[in-house]
Amino acid sequence: MRAIITGGAGFIGSNLADFLLEKGWTVKVVDNLSAGRKEFYEHNLKNPNYTFEKLDLKDAEAVKASFAGGWDIVFHLAANADVKGGWKNPTIDLKENVITISNVLEAMRENKIKKIMFSSTGSIYGDTNVFPTPEDAPFPIQTSMYGAAKLYGEGLIQSYCEAYDMQCWIYRFVSIMGERYTHGVVFNFLQQLAKDPKKLEFLSDGTALKSYLYVGDCIRGIIQGIEKSNDKINIFNLGTPEEMDVKTIGDTVVQKMGMSGVTYELGPEPGGWIGDNPHILLDITKLQKLGWKPSLSIKEAIERTVDWLKDNPWALGGDYFRGP
Amino acid sequence: MRAIITGGAGFIGSNLADFLLEKGWTVKVVDNLSAGRKEFYEHNLKNPNYTFEKLDLKDAEAVKASFAGGWDIVFHLAANADVKGGWKNPTIDLKENVITISNVLEAMRENKIKKIMFSSTGSIYGDTNVFPTPEDAPFPIQTSMYGAAKLYGEGLIQSYCEAYDMQCWIYRFVSIMGERYTHGVVFNFLQQLAKDPKKLEFLSDGTALKSYLYVGDCIRGIIQGIEKSNDKINIFNLGTPEEMDVKTIGDTVVQKMGMSGVTYELGPEPGGWIGDNPHILLDITKLQKLGWKPSLSIKEAIERTVDWLKDNPWALGGDYFRGP
Repeated sequence: MRAIITGGAGFIGSNLADFLLEKGWTVKVVDNLSAGRKEFYEHNLKNPNYTFEKLDLKDAEAVKASFAGGWDIVFHLAANADVKGGWKNPTIDLKENVITISNVLEAMRENKIKKIMFSSTGSIYGDTNVFPTPEDAPFPIQTSMYGAAKLYGEGLIQSYCEAYDMQCWIYRFVSIMGERYTHGVVFNFLQQLAKDPKKLEFLSDGTALKSYLYVGDCIRGIIQGIEKSNDKINIFNLGTPEEMDVKTIGDTVVQKMGMSGVTYELGPEPGGWIGDNPHILLDITKLQKLGWKPSLSIKEAIERTVDWLKDNPWALGGDYFRGP
Repeated sequence: MRAIITGGAGFIGSNLADFLLEKGWTVKVVDNLSAGRKEFYEHNLKNPNYTFEKLDLKDAEAVKASFAGGWDIVFHLAANADVKGGWKNPTIDLKENVITISNVLEAMRENKIKKIMFSSTGSIYGDTNVFPTPEDAPFPIQTSMYGAAKLYGEGLIQSYCEAYDMQCWIYRFVSIMGERYTHGVVFNFLQQLAKDPKKLEFLSDGTALKSYLYVGDCIRGIIQGIEKSNDKINIFNLGTPEEMDVKTIGDTVVQKMGMSGVTYELGPEPGGWIGDNPHILLDITKLQKLGWKPSLSIKEAIERTVDWLKDNPWALGGDYFRGP
């Protein structure tokens, strides 16, 4: 199989690239390196089955040219993942997550690529009050520009499948953790503790209940869905049956770091920022019925993430903090 | 009250402008005249409470400038309404219905306009199998680029309401008919009969069940919703409790025209084009509970539309046919 991975130099995309190469696939990664890191893909550069191309998905003609050459599937993972940045910069999701998906689909149409995997988000359920939230939950109300953009991505992909005989696998992710994790709550906590090992500031009051999935489980889930479901439009939640409050995440990080006497400074509300969904728990029954299940608990995923960041302290530097 | 109406020179927008002026509102219409007609607004040009401005909503800076001057609400009706054109020109909805809504919202934010009414669509329920379809139907699968764009519009408006203390009234319309109707199934049938009074070609097999609402009822419904509901986010279906198959629409038009011996040439399938929803029937209970109800039946709405087109044959000329 020959796959293009957009955002394939980033956290999830680079893990997916390694996984597919291991399975014997041919992989082309396109990435604008806004969040992707050379450290995540340079080990593949000598692999004859691997190609890397720096590409800005906002450039429609460049994407069409890049997708030429006979590919079976596009894994579209590239995105601005800064959910909470939307309300400060409300057009960034339009530029990075809306126009880009149209460019990807047009390039697929031009080059007759018929299959697409899309990384959507559990945030798409907005202010739902159904927990765990199934894929066919009531028509949601959006709370973030990020969610609205992903909603458009899903809808546009579905309409391309309807119009152009394409096939899609759409995954609504919870927060993902693990090796090469470069933004999010655990990342933020470790950055803070690196600066001051006695204090941890929370954006929220710590009560928000969230679900987190280990990146290895996420990738196995993506591939399981593609291999075991063959409808025109396949939509899956991808998370864990567990949830954890943000304060307990803090406790787990502090404990794993072997620290003590850390003072917590809590925010005023369960939501950490405008548009934050203070409760995310997805119903993952649909994908589980295909034989997939998460291998790590949330606690184990956090510990694995802390281990990786401790082993790769360079990853904590720079401006990669993107919020939980 | 001071209102801006985007697309206010078009079918629904110009009827809304007249209605609001009649109520004593101050109205500014912005329209790029791609589908709008001078005949629909020139009678208002001498009204001191009315302003018309030719404006392309794709020009973000021009929209910001245009929205200055203190306005209470924006009625955002401007849109590419050619649902079936999407699969031939799959980026037109991105340009005309996606980027424009972001520009409108940014211009509102810049000018501190806090209220927006948005014309969404019953097509947004995609391939639903729940009839009549309520506002909180299961998470829909989109079948058209038009539906995907409207879905984004709804989501982006909701996220602006969440982030910037704005308030919205979102209406999911069925097909609208009546005075100043310039595209759609009845329009198409009359154009055909004007050319050949003995033959009527159908895009579909005529069995598709659709719902149609008289434009006057549509506008009373919009205003009723705004006056009687005051949540941050207010979403209403706007249709009739009736449905009618497309063949019966043909019969009604032919009968109202006083014609006979018309041969029908039917298409092969219930759906008239790729992405067509062959069954649309919305649950309008929510708006009805606020005291609104349609005054005309579908048959009466069609007859009113035929009368208007007979009285205004100029409207049938030109390239205004946009499909049912």
